[in-house]
Amino acid sequence: MSAQIKSIENLINEFKKLPGIGPKSARRIVFYLLKQNEKDILSFADALIDMKKKVKFCKNCFNLSEEDECPICKDNSRNTSTICIVEKASDIMVIESAGEYKGLYHVLGGLLSPIENIGPEELKISQLIDRINRLKVTEIILALNSTVEGDSTATYLNKALKYLGIKITKLASGLPVGGDIEYADQITIGRAISGRREF
Amino acid sequence: MSAQIKSIENLINEFKKLPGIGPKSARRIVFYLLKQNEKDILSFADALIDMKKKVKFCKNCFNLSEEDECPICKDNSRNTSTICIVEKASDIMVIESAGEYKGLYHVLGGLLSPIENIGPEELKISQLIDRINRLKVTEIILALNSTVEGDSTATYLNKALKYLGIKITKLASGLPVGGDIEYADQITIGRAISGRREF
Repeated sequence: MSAQIKSIENLINEFKKLPGIGPKSARRIVFYLLKQNEKDILSFADALIDMKKKVKFCKNCFNLSEEDECPICKDNSRNTSTICIVEKASDIMVIESAGEYKGLYHVLGGLLSPIENIGPEELKISQLIDRINRLKVTEIILALNSTVEGDSTATYLNKALKYLGIKITKLASGLPVGGDIEYADQITIGRAISGRREF
Repeated sequence: MSAQIKSIENLINEFKKLPGIGPKSARRIVFYLLKQNEKDILSFADALIDMKKKVKFCKNCFNLSEEDECPICKDNSRNTSTICIVEKASDIMVIESAGEYKGLYHVLGGLLSPIENIGPEELKISQLIDRINRLKVTEIILALNSTVEGDSTATYLNKALKYLGIKITKLASGLPVGGDIEYADQITIGRAISGRREF
């Protein structure tokens, strides 16, 4: 194409790298941005640089944070006797948006995976045991994906933490709220039945 | 939500403003960007600022350009006796990607719309007439959307340019390539029949 305008093509290429954005969406976004004023574009660019500069890991739970301790660890109103174990920091944001959980978190930084060469040493498990002892935690909630890696990581943690004598729970499996039984898969139905609760 | 990390929320909000990106996609993109190295983030931010700084309008055809004249106007191999009229600069990119057209373009900068208070003076029509005279243009192709505004702008231009004694054509309407007759709307079918060509 002879009519390329380099700085536009460049920006389209940057947007195409992002997950879920194809060539047409990237072009649409860039032409939208061309119509915005300079102030808006600069604040977008600043937000990108700002995030990269400021965000680091919380020294306790490995959540993302702008300070040494993340907002959850610093919040005195949270229940420090419960720790919810998640694979990655973005899972915390999803669980927080439900507003149901008031305890602390711990980000493992991955899941056990022999294929990808991720063993227990690669995950933040020793730091977790330190925190359990220091905070006198009474319950650990395993909030890991229902995948082979998630399940085997949960099984490993269950064994590794058992000697501490604390309660270990995991998120309920079952039908999603608003879900249709007709379209649920067999394993989900099976778990929903085995985990049924009194009405 | 007490667990907000300001610079992350900021960037999610910037992405949410873009067309076609909802809250979940925005979060997914930002967590993807968090994993990228600083160099990649800076080059993304630079591409944004660069585009805004460099891109202006071509003095001839009002296409987007980094110089006074756009790459199409500067290209000596293009046929200067034909001008294709489009509503906006992004339409040029779409037509160019088809590779079929070798003439020049002219961006109107909008379509006639009494509701939005856009009359002929708001569009680049006097500049178009100047160019037609200067370049001794023999054919004008109207490549405007098949909407009420597009059709009435085409009708207006047809009347306004008639006195120049040049050929005025418009893009063929009909079935899209790969389209299924069963799913085509009545108006498209009607136009495809009235515009039928010998096999």
